[in-house]
Amino acid sequence: MDHVVGIQYTSSYSPTKRITFPEGDFNGLPAHVWPKNASRDESGVVSIAGVSLPELAQEFGTPLFVVDEDDFRSRCRDLARAYRGPERVHYASKAFLTREIARWVAQEGLSLDVASYGELRVAQAAEFPAERITAHGNNKSAQYLQACVSAGVEHVVLDSFQEIASLGAEAERQGKVQPVLVRVTPGVDAHTHEFIATSHEDQKFGFSLASGAAKQAAEQAFHHPWLDLRGLHCHVGSQVFDAEGFSLAAKRLMRLQNTLQEELDTRLPILDLGGGYGIAYTEKDTPLDVQAVAEDLIRRVQIEADRLGLEAPTIMVEPGRAIAGPSTVTIYEVGTIKDVNVTDELTRRYIAVDGGMSDNIRPALYQAEYDARVVSRLCEGELCDSRVVGSHCESGDILIADQRYPDDIRPGDLLALAATGAYCFAMASRYNMFTRPAVVSVKDGKARLMVRRETIEDFLAMEG
Amino acid sequence: MDHVVGIQYTSSYSPTKRITFPEGDFNGLPAHVWPKNASRDESGVVSIAGVSLPELAQEFGTPLFVVDEDDFRSRCRDLARAYRGPERVHYASKAFLTREIARWVAQEGLSLDVASYGELRVAQAAEFPAERITAHGNNKSAQYLQACVSAGVEHVVLDSFQEIASLGAEAERQGKVQPVLVRVTPGVDAHTHEFIATSHEDQKFGFSLASGAAKQAAEQAFHHPWLDLRGLHCHVGSQVFDAEGFSLAAKRLMRLQNTLQEELDTRLPILDLGGGYGIAYTEKDTPLDVQAVAEDLIRRVQIEADRLGLEAPTIMVEPGRAIAGPSTVTIYEVGTIKDVNVTDELTRRYIAVDGGMSDNIRPALYQAEYDARVVSRLCEGELCDSRVVGSHCESGDILIADQRYPDDIRPGDLLALAATGAYCFAMASRYNMFTRPAVVSVKDGKARLMVRRETIEDFLAMEG
Repeated sequence: MDHVVGIQYTSSYSPTKRITFPEGDFNGLPAHVWPKNASRDESGVVSIAGVSLPELAQEFGTPLFVVDEDDFRSRCRDLARAYRGPERVHYASKAFLTREIARWVAQEGLSLDVASYGELRVAQAAEFPAERITAHGNNKSAQYLQACVSAGVEHVVLDSFQEIASLGAEAERQGKVQPVLVRVTPGVDAHTHEFIATSHEDQKFGFSLASGAAKQAAEQAFHHPWLDLRGLHCHVGSQVFDAEGFSLAAKRLMRLQNTLQEELDTRLPILDLGGGYGIAYTEKDTPLDVQAVAEDLIRRVQIEADRLGLEAPTIMVEPGRAIAGPSTVTIYEVGTIKDVNVTDELTRRYIAVDGGMSDNIRPALYQAEYDARVVSRLCEGELCDSRVVGSHCESGDILIADQRYPDDIRPGDLLALAATGAYCFAMASRYNMFTRPAVVSVKDGKARLMVRRETIEDFLAMEG
Repeated sequence: MDHVVGIQYTSSYSPTKRITFPEGDFNGLPAHVWPKNASRDESGVVSIAGVSLPELAQEFGTPLFVVDEDDFRSRCRDLARAYRGPERVHYASKAFLTREIARWVAQEGLSLDVASYGELRVAQAAEFPAERITAHGNNKSAQYLQACVSAGVEHVVLDSFQEIASLGAEAERQGKVQPVLVRVTPGVDAHTHEFIATSHEDQKFGFSLASGAAKQAAEQAFHHPWLDLRGLHCHVGSQVFDAEGFSLAAKRLMRLQNTLQEELDTRLPILDLGGGYGIAYTEKDTPLDVQAVAEDLIRRVQIEADRLGLEAPTIMVEPGRAIAGPSTVTIYEVGTIKDVNVTDELTRRYIAVDGGMSDNIRPALYQAEYDARVVSRLCEGELCDSRVVGSHCESGDILIADQRYPDDIRPGDLLALAATGAYCFAMASRYNMFTRPAVVSVKDGKARLMVRRETIEDFLAMEG
């Protein structure tokens, strides 16, 4: 935190100015979707942590990612408290990683998940403590495994028999015993709360519990002289909203853990239940209650441990989206507005903004929904059927497919989408030679440039 | 074409070495899918234009895009011949644009479509002649419009009433009359060959023909003192395989053109029928026959012109994928191989490669299919149910969902996907902090680095 760039807004920092609107009002900022420090003043201008979004757009241009640092950190703390120890909570880098983000995570005492050599490199560039890094990946490169062992990461999560051999060989080469977890596919559907019919999972990750591969992998890892088996890992889904799926998976893993402990006469202290904590993207969504889920899960694991006569393992979790997602908004400028007669009964208003699928591929890729609000003023118009589209040369470049917005949204308005902290900047492309947006963090009335805007010159400089 | 980097392979350039395999053989390289100069020698090594793909992988690393320059240029020429003039064929930048690509297009005499300020900037950096550039976009920024007028682009394709006003004002400000086309949504489905039921189209582009908006826009543009209306434009779809849809749209546009010419007492010389020319991604696909479609279309436009008593307009077309797509392959290295029991009857082999949805989002985004072959040796194994997946931390990171491949594919093999020239590099992200691949072009036994591989340092350098 050595330098602050751009404008500073300390004078206008006054959270008491926040005005509230009835549920469903377009001028509202649903508290469960928007960053915790977002507020709208009487003039209609939205600020985050006391920093005016229109002023940020003016200074840094649009599209622009704005991260509420305190929101991000507060979610780290909520999870740390819920799981009774910050190091048990692993922030999943893949959601959104910069050196600054890694520093926040480090300062909050959390652990970090990386899923590639590149993510490990960024973490190292931020001097993230290696002993709190867990390394994932279905197809880890030799370079990545080498770097993991060399750095001394806390755990490498084994994902294939090949990797047991290659990681073991690398550990031996370096003369360092590498602690590992075994990734198990437990055959649990976290959304339906059912065991998957076949007890297998048709996916690239992990070792099947049902087929016996998971047990075999754990035994191999245990017996490998250069690997130190510390426990089991699983991941049951994304956007999960209750403890049921995690709990079912935990029970299945603990039974295997029990068998292994008895057969191998050892103790496996770690039970890593992965990520997948759901967040609210739209007003109608209810986010996962971190505290309630954690309590429920810890209690159920204890019951299962008691039943099996085990010492309860340390639960680790790996949320990414639940920390980064709600902290961030994307500011766009409204450009072309066009009414299209879809049928004799339906006219749809197309509201085009100056970004799109290059900075947020999730609506096109996952049919993800978002909450959008004008942040530069109050809107007063009648609601009309609307679609928010980007500026890419592709008709599927849609950010919000079907919503009712005031009919007085006009060119030049600033429209922001909330909950864009996870998998938006991280997956950004330069499709249509759009330059990737800048990222700015805000805190206590100050703005800080986290990543500068990409330029065409950046691309041209890479050409041979 | 001032410097050639990397290894040169002139000595091994011998297209006669090509060996052929029966249809359906995994060692084959289906000629309608693979670059024209791809061949496999007796040892099983695949070369393009005499350049060994394993040697390229060794020199430049994987994943790696390899562009067959002659293939790309030959498709430019085929289209130029089919449409009786290279300038009538507009290469769509959005598919794949670098300065070198823009130079090839310029040298072949084709025109260029850009869809953003960034694409225009790259074209200008390549010194592409502005009088052969057409500018698209549903939401053109003020900066983009300013640059279009300033550069003197051939046409700006008007996409909204707002833009008629803003482009007109910009042209006036610069004191230059700007030639324009009007983008019409003709209500044609190029895949079903039917008029869309409502005669409207629920999309962000253009002016509806049926509602009268297209006619009104053309009239406004015609009467604007700083705009010069040159004709009409439409785009009927993507991956279209025959002339029927283009022809239906042409007829509808020509009727409007006729009405406008009579009412305004003018001549509109251009009929721009956009892109959408389908290519073969897999062995079972049949690519659009450029020559046959062009002849069919030109004939039908002439018949319609005769019927209306018009001079036939100059047909312009805008293929991107049909030029860039088949020219390029992506080389990956095979890593983890894993057999997953999906049901009691089905075991699926997961073949993981060292790239994935960051360098090719199309399978995840559009359920696109691709043709993959081992390019480093001959495979002899029995076919087994297989899935090619990437290395991203996401179970949806699938490149080829369901194919039968030899069971002797093993770690370290080089696997290449064909027809990755369009919308792969152009849409590449750095998801999971994967660095974007390098792009190499090959011609006459020589390799040339077109775009270098992105590094983590590139990203770190952008942080504030």
